[in-house]
Amino acid sequence: MSLTPDQQAEIDAARAHSNTTRRATVAGLEARLYEAVPCLDHGFVRVVDYMGDDAAITQAARVSYGRGTKAVSNDEGLIRYLMRHWHSTPFEMCEIKLHVKLPVFVARQWIRHRTANVNEYSARYSVLDREFYIPAPEQLAAQSTQNNQGRGEILEGEEAQRVLDVLRQDATTAYDHYEDMLSQDGQKGLARELARMNLPANIYTQWYWKTDLHNLFHFLRLRADSHAQYEIRVYAEAMCDIVRDWVPLAYGAFEEYRLGGVQLSRTGMDVVRRMLAGEAVTQETSGLSAREWRELQEVLDAKNR
Amino acid sequence: MSLTPDQQAEIDAARAHSNTTRRATVAGLEARLYEAVPCLDHGFVRVVDYMGDDAAITQAARVSYGRGTKAVSNDEGLIRYLMRHWHSTPFEMCEIKLHVKLPVFVARQWIRHRTANVNEYSARYSVLDREFYIPAPEQLAAQSTQNNQGRGEILEGEEAQRVLDVLRQDATTAYDHYEDMLSQDGQKGLARELARMNLPANIYTQWYWKTDLHNLFHFLRLRADSHAQYEIRVYAEAMCDIVRDWVPLAYGAFEEYRLGGVQLSRTGMDVVRRMLAGEAVTQETSGLSAREWRELQEVLDAKNR
Amino acid sequence: MSLTPDQQAEIDAARAHSNTTRRATVAGLEARLYEAVPCLDHGFVRVVDYMGDDAAITQAARVSYGRGTKAVSNDEGLIRYLMRHWHSTPFEMCEIKLHVKLPVFVARQWIRHRTANVNEYSARYSVLDREFYIPAPEQLAAQSTQNNQGRGEILEGEEAQRVLDVLRQDATTAYDHYEDMLSQDGQKGLARELARMNLPANIYTQWYWKTDLHNLFHFLRLRADSHAQYEIRVYAEAMCDIVRDWVPLAYGAFEEYRLGGVQLSRTGMDVVRRMLAGEAVTQETSGLSAREWRELQEVLDAKNR
Amino acid sequence: MSLTPDQQAEIDAARAHSNTTRRATVAGLEARLYEAVPCLDHGFVRVVDYMGDDAAITQAARVSYGRGTKAVSNDEGLIRYLMRHWHSTPFEMCEIKLHVKLPVFVARQWIRHRTANVNEYSARYSVLDREFYIPAPEQLAAQSTQNNQGRGEILEGEEAQRVLDVLRQDATTAYDHYEDMLSQDGQKGLARELARMNLPANIYTQWYWKTDLHNLFHFLRLRADSHAQYEIRVYAEAMCDIVRDWVPLAYGAFEEYRLGGVQLSRTGMDVVRRMLAGEAVTQETSGLSAREWRELQEVLDAKNR
Repeated sequence: MSLTPDQQAEIDAARAHSNTTRRATVAGLEARLYEAVPCLDHGFVRVVDYMGDDAAITQAARVSYGRGTKAVSNDEGLIRYLMRHWHSTPFEMCEIKLHVKLPVFVARQWIRHRTANVNEYSARYSVLDREFYIPAPEQLAAQSTQNNQGRGEILEGEEAQRVLDVLRQDATTAYDHYEDMLSQDGQKGLARELARMNLPANIYTQWYWKTDLHNLFHFLRLRADSHAQYEIRVYAEAMCDIVRDWVPLAYGAFEEYRLGGVQLSRTGMDVVRRMLAGEAVTQETSGLSAREWRELQEVLDAKNR
Repeated sequence: MSLTPDQQAEIDAARAHSNTTRRATVAGLEARLYEAVPCLDHGFVRVVDYMGDDAAITQAARVSYGRGTKAVSNDEGLIRYLMRHWHSTPFEMCEIKLHVKLPVFVARQWIRHRTANVNEYSARYSVLDREFYIPAPEQLAAQSTQNNQGRGEILEGEEAQRVLDVLRQDATTAYDHYEDMLSQDGQKGLARELARMNLPANIYTQWYWKTDLHNLFHFLRLRADSHAQYEIRVYAEAMCDIVRDWVPLAYGAFEEYRLGGVQLSRTGMDVVRRMLAGEAVTQETSGLSAREWRELQEVLDAKNR
Repeated sequence: MSLTPDQQAEIDAARAHSNTTRRATVAGLEARLYEAVPCLDHGFVRVVDYMGDDAAITQAARVSYGRGTKAVSNDEGLIRYLMRHWHSTPFEMCEIKLHVKLPVFVARQWIRHRTANVNEYSARYSVLDREFYIPAPEQLAAQSTQNNQGRGEILEGEEAQRVLDVLRQDATTAYDHYEDMLSQDGQKGLARELARMNLPANIYTQWYWKTDLHNLFHFLRLRADSHAQYEIRVYAEAMCDIVRDWVPLAYGAFEEYRLGGVQLSRTGMDVVRRMLAGEAVTQETSGLSAREWRELQEVLDAKNR
Repeated sequence: MSLTPDQQAEIDAARAHSNTTRRATVAGLEARLYEAVPCLDHGFVRVVDYMGDDAAITQAARVSYGRGTKAVSNDEGLIRYLMRHWHSTPFEMCEIKLHVKLPVFVARQWIRHRTANVNEYSARYSVLDREFYIPAPEQLAAQSTQNNQGRGEILEGEEAQRVLDVLRQDATTAYDHYEDMLSQDGQKGLARELARMNLPANIYTQWYWKTDLHNLFHFLRLRADSHAQYEIRVYAEAMCDIVRDWVPLAYGAFEEYRLGGVQLSRTGMDVVRRMLAGEAVTQETSGLSAREWRELQEVLDAKNR
């Protein structure tokens, strides 16, 4: 991560200032407000604002006049009940606003989640910085042979070096030319909205991104999952830490019923029942395809994942 | 409006409590936080939480690291520019959560605005209170003869009295029977989810409703308009006051470009140009239908509405 | 269900007409297009239009140039894969438009699903018909003693009769008074937008409702569930039949992975693993609350639900 | 535009096939169904499916049982009324699905419109084609000196040539290296999800994009506007032609009230009234900023734009 001294000074100034409010506040999140959590080589995610806390979830579920319940234990039980039974609207009553710096190809995956508010840095209006994501060597993986959209073995030796050289060199050349085309030194200078088209997908962009807790959990379930691409998972995991500090009871319920939970198909559940009844079910007798059978075995073998 | 002593005590307790926060706060809104603004005979709207202020709009538009600009004048100019040119996403960076008590038929209009989060009091789970909207005499209007979905003259004398008697009597009867059916005194007692079907559309319900500033402005433009039904306009106007206290610069821009602004059609604008060039345009030569011609005259005659 | 001869004639005329199209069509749905499927005592649901078929799902998933795959078996495998792994966007590529007539209290539950397009019959603009939902005797249930938002035993004898009498009588009175207030016979006549407030929640309304297949499945998972209120479940079940005729492969996957599927919590899944390993787990040793333990037992006991 | 013979054959096959349907069809759109309309140097937009026609708008507005009105003139009047008074839901009852091939930097602008369904070609799963957008010489413009996000003069001579050379050369190099990194010839081959990061923003991607008519009009108002970036405006204009063929009455209303309409601020409208009353208003006496005064003059001078 690379914050300029000016940027860090702006953040420090915002952190130095504090106000009095009647609203719900969360000490654990206040402590880290505005601070940038590093992600990948130059990226970050930082909390710019938030609305609500665990009690705000139960307050809305009860449509109550005051600040919710007397006892934390009541809140926890209700929050777990709401999560377990797919009551989504009370979780929508908490909102968070993040400032994220991320490579463009990650931004393109991220934006597929449409139920959020976004303000992205405009390359029509401004010049992008010379910052590119270059994978760490241990992330330089071959195409998976099993999964059409996944990674396999780590690249090594000369091949790994060639990839890193290419990524660095092409990014440098593209950015040099971007600056050359924009330059008004002895020439008119190409419009920014055109010059940007020369920049590769590993250049960093940034945005303000705001969403509610229900939709954030949906994002995290998909993007903190082991099948998500590593480069977006890094951000999702940083956000999981943030959410844990913000709404610990809701996050606990999310871990129990979503992140750590398991979805079994009708046939898969029937297989489990037959096994529990003592039957030695095989793939052939299961009614499951080979692939689904393998997926079920993985779930049954997992050591309390 | 009728808050029970318990409800008022809950509100007072919430107001008595204050915290320190690094987030943006708005003194004008803090001053009225949690307090119920009366609407109609038993309803209210009150702010339960908010996120952001005027500076949060420009902060997001600039994707800045700190709290926005040095000068308020810069913020104002940018906010007006954003509003004028239909940049909606920066306004989405402010969020507000309201607790609203309102008649069911108003709730049914309100909910047509889908881009919001809602938790409504559940009549499957709980028993509704005996509170009904009865119009004030000056709101008891006849069907408009010009507007298929509007009101005309005020009812008077016996007719007005008959209407008020009917509304009060039918509501009382319906609620008495609702209680009778629910009662487990000497009988099983009908399920709440069934008994509620006997209640009329003027019974009060309540909900938590949360939305962003852009969508709130859209709501207010339609519902604070003179063509909106009076009973929802009362709420919209109370919300306009709230928004003015919350984000005065954005609200000023909203008044200038939306609430007080005018949309002219291609042909209507052409008529204005011809008039400015000195032509005496009539409906016949205008290219406008009689109705659109009348609507244009109203716009041109308005004394700085 | 009660269609007037005029309404039935309109439907017949629409059904009599047919066109040639290059678009995907589904014979099974064409056969029932426009026809009203009765729901409750006066309601219905009918398909007004649709876009796409099973092949449209795989066509979009592959971003293909033509009509999808050669073999149905390929489509089925891909559709099941997409459903199993929560790929929602390909299912969004199918769209359906329904005309629904339903009691207001059902409409109020229904509208909580916000990702849909709705045009409701306007009681500001028009006069509602004299049609009310009166439950069939076998649906007249007491409040559940176990579930705060559910039904228990069926009411019988005098209590049942009292409820039916009240519902019928109050609806009749309310509607008589609605007409009286609207009447312009010897009086001005109350505005429709006001008079409607006297009508109870079991009066029928109607709307055009349009949504995509992904969001429809979400609706059906919640509303065709045994915990949904009977009066909305009737509509959900009628819609399940429609969807089965429309996109049989997608519907099959929906039944296998959603409707018939099971969600186990992290701890619940761990209990299953311990049982499969031969441990005699009890509620005390399970780590589950009494309620969650009971819910798990229900899942494990189910005979291939 | 470059369709391979296989792609064209797939399109031809789809066009050759036709079915009988009871649904509303539009001859003007059927005639061009599936055909690719060229946009930029390698892109296109083509209609894959549609739902509804002009009559479907009024049918929904009236919640009618049959196919809408007897007379086209009634439909037109109602559609114009609905558009003029911002009734959006009836327009949401028409839906269209497009297959679009477009440069990534255009896709990134496009996707900011969130109320749509999207399936994009996956560069995690598949290898992108070697196709890049290179602007035509007359589109090679300098940065605007007046508009921070616009274009000014056309580049000429050596500067223009340098830009074209750079764009072509860097794209070629980036793609060569993309292929090199992916290659499994004598090496493991980098995962596709990583290799894609080397590709510049002018590479073409493609997606299925589905939206309703209301949201499409909103998209077109912003993107067919003269202030939109040329490269997305080309697509918007192609889509305007499509919509005109599809729902000519609605498109006419859109042109009259949105595309060709004008929004005046409260103060701007007041200036017009003063001018019509004979006052010689100047910027100084107008109450408008210099910029808003200039914008108003442009509107008043326009020759029936």
